[in-house]
Amino acid sequence: MSKLLSDLIEALRCLPGVGNKSAQRMAFHLLERERERGLKLASTLEQAMRRIGHCSRCRNFSEESVCALCANSSRDRQALCVVESPTDLAAIEQATGYRGQYFVLLGRLSPLDGLGPEELGLAQLSERLAEGEIEEMIIATNPTVEGEATAHYLAQLAHAAGVRPSRLAHGVPLGGELEYVDRSTLAHAFGSRHTLS
Amino acid sequence: MSKLLSDLIEALRCLPGVGNKSAQRMAFHLLERERERGLKLASTLEQAMRRIGHCSRCRNFSEESVCALCANSSRDRQALCVVESPTDLAAIEQATGYRGQYFVLLGRLSPLDGLGPEELGLAQLSERLAEGEIEEMIIATNPTVEGEATAHYLAQLAHAAGVRPSRLAHGVPLGGELEYVDRSTLAHAFGSRHTLS
Repeated sequence: MSKLLSDLIEALRCLPGVGNKSAQRMAFHLLERERERGLKLASTLEQAMRRIGHCSRCRNFSEESVCALCANSSRDRQALCVVESPTDLAAIEQATGYRGQYFVLLGRLSPLDGLGPEELGLAQLSERLAEGEIEEMIIATNPTVEGEATAHYLAQLAHAAGVRPSRLAHGVPLGGELEYVDRSTLAHAFGSRHTLS
Repeated sequence: MSKLLSDLIEALRCLPGVGNKSAQRMAFHLLERERERGLKLASTLEQAMRRIGHCSRCRNFSEESVCALCANSSRDRQALCVVESPTDLAAIEQATGYRGQYFVLLGRLSPLDGLGPEELGLAQLSERLAEGEIEEMIIATNPTVEGEATAHYLAQLAHAAGVRPSRLAHGVPLGGELEYVDRSTLAHAFGSRHTLS
Protein backbone atom coordinates (compact mmCIF):
# COMPACT_ATOMS: atom_id res chain seq x y z
CA MET A 1 0.00 0.00 0.00
CA SER A 2 1.27 3.52 -0.80
CA LYS A 3 2.95 5.43 2.05
CA LEU A 4 0.55 8.35 1.85
CA LEU A 5 -2.47 6.04 1.86
CA SER A 6 -1.29 4.17 4.95
CA ASP A 7 -0.52 7.52 6.62
CA LEU A 8 -4.08 8.62 5.86
CA ILE A 9 -5.53 5.40 7.33
CA GLU A 10 -3.40 5.86 10.45
CA ALA A 11 -4.42 9.53 10.77
CA LEU A 12 -8.14 8.72 10.46
CA ARG A 13 -7.83 6.53 13.55
CA CYS A 14 -7.75 9.65 15.74
CA LEU A 15 -11.53 9.79 15.24
CA PRO A 16 -13.49 8.19 18.09
CA GLY A 17 -14.86 4.72 17.33
CA VAL A 18 -12.74 4.37 14.18
CA GLY A 19 -10.50 1.32 14.08
CA ASN A 20 -8.21 0.09 11.33
CA LYS A 21 -10.96 -1.43 9.22
CA SER A 22 -13.24 1.64 9.26
CA ALA A 23 -10.30 3.96 8.68
CA GLN A 24 -9.40 1.93 5.59
CA ARG A 25 -12.99 2.06 4.35
CA MET A 26 -13.10 5.84 4.90
CA ALA A 27 -9.80 6.42 3.08
CA PHE A 28 -10.85 4.34 0.06
CA HIS A 29 -14.29 5.96 -0.02
CA LEU A 30 -12.82 9.48 -0.05
CA LEU A 31 -10.23 8.60 -2.70
CA GLU A 32 -12.69 6.80 -4.95
CA ARG A 33 -15.68 9.06 -4.73
CA GLU A 34 -15.33 12.19 -2.61
CA ARG A 35 -12.07 14.00 -3.34
CA GLU A 36 -13.73 17.42 -3.34
CA ARG A 37 -15.49 16.87 -0.03
CA GLY A 38 -12.34 15.30 1.37
CA LEU A 39 -10.40 18.48 0.56
CA LYS A 40 -13.18 20.56 2.10
CA LEU A 41 -13.01 18.42 5.25
CA ALA A 42 -9.22 18.88 5.39
CA SER A 43 -9.43 22.67 5.24
CA THR A 44 -12.41 22.97 7.63
CA LEU A 45 -10.70 20.65 10.10
CA GLU A 46 -7.49 22.65 9.96
CA GLN A 47 -9.37 25.93 10.53
CA ALA A 48 -11.43 24.45 13.35
CA MET A 49 -8.43 22.95 15.17
CA ARG A 50 -6.56 26.27 14.98
CA ARG A 51 -9.31 28.81 15.53
CA ILE A 52 -11.93 27.33 17.85
CA GLY A 53 -11.20 28.32 21.46
CA HIS A 54 -13.48 28.84 24.42
CA CYS A 55 -16.04 31.57 25.10
CA SER A 56 -14.72 33.82 27.90
CA ARG A 57 -18.16 33.91 29.48
CA CYS A 58 -19.58 30.35 29.32
CA ARG A 59 -16.45 28.34 28.36
CA ASN A 60 -18.26 26.63 25.47
CA PHE A 61 -16.39 26.18 22.18
CA SER A 62 -16.33 29.40 20.19
CA GLU A 63 -14.12 31.10 17.61
CA GLU A 64 -15.16 34.51 19.03
CA SER A 65 -14.15 35.68 22.50
CA VAL A 66 -17.85 35.73 23.46
CA CYS A 67 -19.98 33.04 21.82
CA ALA A 68 -23.18 33.71 19.87
CA LEU A 69 -25.33 32.26 22.64
CA CYS A 70 -23.85 34.51 25.37
CA ALA A 71 -24.02 37.51 23.04
CA ASN A 72 -27.69 36.86 22.20
CA SER A 73 -29.60 39.53 24.11
CA SER A 74 -32.96 37.83 23.56
CA ARG A 75 -32.04 34.94 25.87
CA ASP A 76 -33.23 34.85 29.45
CA ARG A 77 -30.57 36.23 31.85
CA GLN A 78 -32.22 34.91 35.01
CA ALA A 79 -31.46 31.24 34.39
CA LEU A 80 -28.05 29.59 34.17
CA CYS A 81 -27.65 25.94 33.22
CA VAL A 82 -24.36 24.29 34.26
CA VAL A 83 -23.18 21.33 32.15
CA GLU A 84 -20.07 19.20 32.08
CA SER A 85 -19.28 19.41 28.38
CA PRO A 86 -20.17 21.19 25.14
CA THR A 87 -21.84 17.96 24.00
CA ASP A 88 -24.25 18.14 26.95
CA LEU A 89 -24.99 21.77 26.10
CA ALA A 90 -25.75 20.80 22.50
CA ALA A 91 -28.02 17.97 23.69
CA ILE A 92 -30.02 20.31 25.95
CA GLU A 93 -30.29 22.95 23.23
CA GLN A 94 -31.57 20.37 20.75
CA ALA A 95 -33.99 18.58 23.07
CA THR A 96 -35.48 21.27 25.29
CA GLY A 97 -37.01 24.71 24.90
CA TYR A 98 -34.55 26.22 27.40
CA ARG A 99 -33.80 29.86 26.54
CA GLY A 100 -31.43 30.84 29.36
CA GLN A 101 -27.65 31.04 29.73
CA TYR A 102 -25.08 28.24 30.12
CA PHE A 103 -21.85 27.56 31.90
CA VAL A 104 -19.63 24.70 30.70
CA LEU A 105 -17.36 23.09 33.32
CA LEU A 106 -15.25 21.20 30.75
CA GLY A 107 -15.05 18.30 33.18
CA ARG A 108 -16.33 17.25 36.60
CA LEU A 109 -14.76 17.32 40.05
CA SER A 110 -12.30 14.47 39.99
CA PRO A 111 -9.31 15.04 42.31
CA LEU A 112 -7.61 11.83 41.13
CA ASP A 113 -7.49 13.20 37.56
CA GLY A 114 -6.28 16.59 38.83
CA LEU A 115 -9.65 18.23 38.19
CA GLY A 116 -10.49 20.59 41.07
CA PRO A 117 -12.63 23.75 41.35
CA GLU A 118 -9.91 25.76 39.59
CA GLU A 119 -9.85 23.60 36.44
CA LEU A 120 -13.65 23.76 36.22
CA GLY A 121 -13.67 27.57 36.36
CA LEU A 122 -15.73 27.65 39.54
CA ALA A 123 -14.24 30.99 40.64
CA GLN A 124 -15.51 32.44 37.37
CA LEU A 125 -18.90 30.81 37.98
CA SER A 126 -19.09 32.33 41.49
CA GLU A 127 -18.33 35.78 40.08
CA ARG A 128 -21.14 35.31 37.62
CA LEU A 129 -23.57 34.30 40.37
CA ALA A 130 -22.42 37.33 42.40
CA GLU A 131 -23.44 39.66 39.56
CA GLY A 132 -26.95 39.23 40.96
CA GLU A 133 -28.80 38.77 37.65
CA ILE A 134 -29.17 34.99 37.94
CA GLU A 135 -32.10 33.63 39.95
CA GLU A 136 -31.99 29.91 39.15
CA MET A 137 -28.98 27.68 38.53
CA ILE A 138 -29.99 24.46 36.77
CA ILE A 139 -27.38 21.82 37.57
CA ALA A 140 -27.20 19.43 34.61
CA THR A 141 -24.06 17.44 35.42
CA ASN A 142 -24.19 13.74 34.55
CA PRO A 143 -25.93 11.33 36.93
CA THR A 144 -22.62 9.56 37.74
CA VAL A 145 -20.81 9.45 41.07
CA GLU A 146 -18.49 12.29 40.09
CA GLY A 147 -21.30 14.23 38.45
CA GLU A 148 -23.38 13.99 41.64
CA ALA A 149 -20.44 15.15 43.78
CA THR A 150 -19.97 18.09 41.40
CA ALA A 151 -23.70 18.87 41.61
CA HIS A 152 -23.49 18.89 45.40
CA TYR A 153 -20.56 21.32 45.32
CA LEU A 154 -22.34 23.55 42.77
CA ALA A 155 -25.51 23.63 44.92
CA GLN A 156 -23.43 24.96 47.81
CA LEU A 157 -21.98 27.69 45.57
CA ALA A 158 -25.51 28.66 44.54
CA HIS A 159 -26.79 28.76 48.11
CA ALA A 160 -23.81 30.92 49.15
CA ALA A 161 -24.70 33.40 46.39
CA GLY A 162 -28.41 33.37 47.21
CA VAL A 163 -29.27 31.66 43.92
CA ARG A 164 -31.85 28.85 43.78
CA PRO A 165 -30.19 25.62 42.57
CA SER A 166 -32.21 22.98 40.71
CA ARG A 167 -31.30 19.56 39.35
CA LEU A 168 -32.61 17.56 36.38
CA ALA A 169 -35.23 14.98 37.44
CA HIS A 170 -34.16 11.36 37.72
CA GLY A 171 -36.58 8.60 36.78
CA VAL A 172 -37.65 6.06 34.24
CA PRO A 173 -36.71 7.10 30.66
CA LEU A 174 -39.61 7.57 28.25
CA GLY A 175 -40.26 4.80 25.77
CA GLY A 176 -38.39 2.16 27.76
CA GLU A 177 -39.70 -0.91 29.51
CA LEU A 178 -39.60 -1.12 33.31
CA GLU A 179 -38.16 -4.61 33.02
CA TYR A 180 -34.96 -3.21 31.50
CA VAL A 181 -34.50 -0.14 33.70
CA ASP A 182 -31.61 -0.53 36.15
CA ARG A 183 -32.42 -1.07 39.82
CA SER A 184 -31.24 2.23 41.27
CA THR A 185 -33.11 4.27 38.64
CA LEU A 186 -36.25 2.25 39.29
CA ALA A 187 -35.89 2.68 43.06
CA HIS A 188 -35.42 6.42 42.59
CA ALA A 189 -38.40 6.72 40.25
CA PHE A 190 -40.53 4.72 42.66
CA GLY A 191 -39.52 6.90 45.61
CA SER A 192 -40.17 10.11 43.66
CA ARG A 193 -43.61 9.05 42.41
CA HIS A 194 -46.16 11.84 42.17
CA THR A 195 -49.92 11.87 42.62
CA LEU A 196 -51.96 12.10 39.42
CA SER A 197 -54.60 14.76 39.68
CA MET B 1 -23.35 26.54 17.99
CA SER B 2 -20.37 28.33 16.42
CA LYS B 3 -20.33 28.59 12.61
CA LEU B 4 -16.96 26.87 12.28
CA LEU B 5 -18.04 24.04 14.57
CA SER B 6 -21.22 23.37 12.60
CA ASP B 7 -19.19 23.55 9.37
CA LEU B 8 -16.83 20.93 10.80
CA ILE B 9 -19.73 18.65 11.77
CA GLU B 10 -21.20 19.03 8.29
CA ALA B 11 -17.82 18.34 6.64
CA LEU B 12 -17.26 15.18 8.71
CA ARG B 13 -20.44 13.73 7.25
CA CYS B 14 -18.61 13.04 3.98
CA LEU B 15 -17.11 10.01 5.76
CA PRO B 16 -19.00 6.77 5.07
CA GLY B 17 -21.29 5.64 7.88
CA VAL B 18 -21.03 8.96 9.70
CA GLY B 19 -24.35 10.69 10.39
CA ASN B 20 -25.07 13.88 12.26
CA LYS B 21 -24.72 12.38 15.72
CA SER B 22 -21.37 10.67 15.08
CA ALA B 23 -20.03 13.73 13.27
CA GLN B 24 -20.88 15.83 16.32
CA ARG B 25 -19.18 13.34 18.62
CA MET B 26 -16.08 13.32 16.40
CA ALA B 27 -15.88 17.12 16.27
CA PHE B 28 -16.20 17.48 20.05
CA HIS B 29 -13.70 14.70 20.66
CA LEU B 30 -11.08 16.31 18.40
CA LEU B 31 -11.62 19.77 19.91
CA GLU B 32 -11.56 18.57 23.49
CA ARG B 33 -8.74 16.08 23.37
CA GLU B 34 -6.97 15.63 20.05
CA ARG B 35 -6.14 18.98 18.49
CA GLU B 36 -2.66 17.88 17.47
CA ARG B 37 -3.85 14.69 15.82
CA GLY B 38 -6.73 16.60 14.27
CA LEU B 39 -4.26 18.97 12.60
CA LYS B 40 -2.19 16.00 11.47
CA LEU B 41 -5.31 14.41 9.96
CA ALA B 42 -6.15 17.67 8.16
CA SER B 43 -2.73 17.93 6.52
CA THR B 44 -2.48 14.20 5.67
CA LEU B 45 -5.96 14.25 4.19
CA GLU B 46 -5.18 17.29 2.07
CA GLN B 47 -1.96 15.69 0.77
CA ALA B 48 -3.70 12.39 0.08
CA MET B 49 -6.63 13.97 -1.78
CA ARG B 50 -4.26 16.00 -3.96
CA ARG B 51 -1.43 13.57 -4.59
CA ILE B 52 -2.81 10.04 -4.68
CA GLY B 53 -3.56 9.02 -8.25
CA HIS B 54 -3.56 5.64 -9.97
CA CYS B 55 -0.66 3.35 -10.87
CA SER B 56 -0.21 3.37 -14.65
CA ARG B 57 0.34 -0.39 -14.64
CA CYS B 58 -2.26 -1.89 -12.24
CA ARG B 59 -4.60 1.11 -11.70
CA ASN B 60 -4.38 0.76 -7.90
CA PHE B 61 -4.07 3.94 -5.80
CA SER B 62 -0.53 5.26 -5.83
CA GLU B 63 1.24 8.58 -5.50
CA GLU B 64 3.95 7.32 -7.87
CA SER B 65 3.31 6.64 -11.56
CA VAL B 66 4.15 2.97 -10.93
CA CYS B 67 3.11 1.64 -7.51
CA ALA B 68 5.44 -0.15 -5.09
CA LEU B 69 3.78 -3.50 -5.75
CA CYS B 70 4.21 -3.30 -9.53
CA ALA B 71 7.77 -2.03 -9.12
CA ASN B 72 8.66 -4.89 -6.75
CA SER B 73 10.84 -7.23 -8.83
CA SER B 74 10.62 -10.06 -6.31
CA ARG B 75 6.92 -10.64 -7.04
CA ASP B 76 5.84 -13.41 -9.35
CA ARG B 77 5.29 -12.13 -12.93
CA GLN B 78 3.42 -15.22 -14.12
CA ALA B 79 0.23 -14.61 -12.12
CA LEU B 80 -2.17 -11.69 -12.45
CA CYS B 81 -5.09 -11.23 -10.08
CA VAL B 82 -7.94 -9.03 -11.35
CA VAL B 83 -10.06 -7.27 -8.70
CA GLU B 84 -12.85 -4.72 -8.80
CA SER B 85 -11.47 -2.23 -6.29
CA PRO B 86 -8.38 -1.26 -4.28
CA THR B 87 -10.23 -2.47 -1.16
CA ASP B 88 -10.46 -5.97 -2.63
CA LEU B 89 -6.74 -5.87 -3.46
CA ALA B 90 -5.96 -4.88 0.13
CA ALA B 91 -8.18 -7.70 1.45
CA ILE B 92 -6.41 -10.30 -0.70
CA GLU B 93 -2.96 -8.99 0.24
CA GLN B 94 -3.84 -9.15 3.94
CA ALA B 95 -5.55 -12.55 3.91
CA THR B 96 -3.62 -14.66 1.43
CA GLY B 97 -0.02 -15.47 0.62
CA TYR B 98 -0.45 -14.39 -3.01
CA ARG B 99 2.82 -13.00 -4.41
CA GLY B 100 1.82 -12.19 -8.00
CA GLN B 101 0.69 -9.07 -9.84
CA TYR B 102 -2.68 -7.28 -9.74
CA PHE B 103 -4.98 -5.40 -12.05
CA VAL B 104 -7.68 -3.16 -10.56
CA LEU B 105 -10.79 -2.61 -12.70
CA LEU B 106 -12.09 0.30 -10.57
CA GLY B 107 -15.61 -0.99 -11.13
CA ARG B 108 -17.45 -3.83 -12.82
CA LEU B 109 -19.20 -4.15 -16.17
CA SER B 110 -22.43 -2.25 -15.68
CA PRO B 111 -23.74 -0.72 -18.90
CA LEU B 112 -26.60 1.04 -17.07
CA ASP B 113 -24.07 3.00 -14.99
CA GLY B 114 -22.02 3.76 -18.09
CA LEU B 115 -19.28 1.30 -17.10
CA GLY B 116 -18.10 -0.58 -20.17
CA PRO B 117 -14.81 -2.28 -21.13
CA GLU B 118 -13.22 1.12 -21.78
CA GLU B 119 -13.88 2.49 -18.26
CA LEU B 120 -12.48 -0.71 -16.72
CA GLY B 121 -9.23 -0.40 -18.67
CA LEU B 122 -9.75 -3.74 -20.42
CA ALA B 123 -7.74 -2.67 -23.48
CA GLN B 124 -4.80 -2.05 -21.13
CA LEU B 125 -5.43 -5.45 -19.54
CA SER B 126 -5.42 -7.16 -22.96
CA GLU B 127 -2.11 -5.50 -23.83
CA ARG B 128 -0.70 -6.80 -20.60
CA LEU B 129 -1.89 -10.35 -21.35
CA ALA B 130 -0.41 -10.03 -24.85
CA GLU B 131 3.05 -9.32 -23.39
CA GLY B 132 3.23 -13.10 -22.92
CA GLU B 133 4.67 -13.16 -19.40
CA ILE B 134 1.41 -13.98 -17.63
CA GLU B 135 0.36 -17.63 -17.41
CA GLU B 136 -2.59 -17.50 -15.01
CA MET B 137 -5.23 -14.81 -14.59
CA ILE B 138 -7.02 -15.12 -11.24
CA ILE B 139 -10.43 -13.50 -11.59
CA ALA B 140 -11.41 -12.14 -8.17
CA THR B 141 -14.42 -10.00 -9.04
CA ASN B 142 -17.25 -10.03 -6.48
CA PRO B 143 -19.75 -12.93 -6.50
CA THR B 144 -22.61 -10.63 -7.55
CA VAL B 145 -24.56 -10.66 -10.83
CA GLU B 146 -22.43 -7.89 -12.32
CA GLY B 147 -19.23 -9.34 -10.88
CA GLU B 148 -20.04 -12.72 -12.47
CA ALA B 149 -20.77 -11.08 -15.85
CA THR B 150 -17.45 -9.27 -15.60
CA ALA B 151 -15.70 -12.54 -14.71
CA HIS B 152 -17.22 -14.19 -17.79
CA TYR B 153 -15.98 -11.35 -20.03
CA LEU B 154 -12.51 -11.48 -18.44
CA ALA B 155 -12.31 -15.25 -18.95
CA GLN B 156 -12.93 -14.71 -22.67
CA LEU B 157 -10.13 -12.13 -22.82
CA ALA B 158 -7.81 -14.60 -21.11
CA HIS B 159 -8.69 -17.44 -23.49
CA ALA B 160 -8.16 -15.13 -26.49
CA ALA B 161 -4.66 -14.33 -25.20
CA GLY B 162 -3.85 -17.97 -24.41
CA VAL B 163 -3.77 -17.29 -20.66
CA ARG B 164 -5.37 -19.74 -18.18
CA PRO B 165 -8.22 -18.01 -16.30
CA SER B 166 -9.15 -19.11 -12.77
CA ARG B 167 -11.87 -17.99 -10.39
CA LEU B 168 -12.04 -17.91 -6.56
CA ALA B 169 -13.90 -20.93 -5.14
CA HIS B 170 -17.47 -20.48 -3.98
CA GLY B 171 -18.76 -22.37 -0.96
CA VAL B 172 -19.64 -22.34 2.69
CA PRO B 173 -17.63 -19.67 4.59
CA LEU B 174 -15.36 -20.97 7.38
CA GLY B 175 -16.61 -20.59 10.93
CA GLY B 176 -20.25 -20.20 9.96
CA GLU B 177 -23.18 -22.50 10.58
CA LEU B 178 -24.87 -24.28 7.69
CA GLU B 179 -28.25 -23.21 9.05
CA TYR B 180 -27.45 -19.57 8.33
CA VAL B 181 -25.79 -19.97 4.93
CA ASP B 182 -27.99 -18.65 2.10
CA ARG B 183 -29.63 -21.21 -0.20
CA SER B 184 -27.71 -20.57 -3.41
CA THR B 185 -24.34 -20.71 -1.63
CA LEU B 186 -25.36 -23.96 0.05
CA ALA B 187 -26.58 -25.43 -3.24
CA HIS B 188 -23.29 -24.43 -4.89
CA ALA B 189 -21.20 -25.86 -2.06
CA PHE B 190 -23.20 -29.09 -2.14
CA GLY B 191 -22.80 -29.43 -5.90
CA SER B 192 -19.05 -28.74 -5.73
CA ARG B 193 -18.41 -31.22 -2.89
CA HIS B 194 -15.09 -33.04 -3.09
CA THR B 195 -14.04 -36.51 -2.05
CA LEU B 196 -11.95 -36.73 1.11
CA SER B 197 -8.94 -38.93 0.70
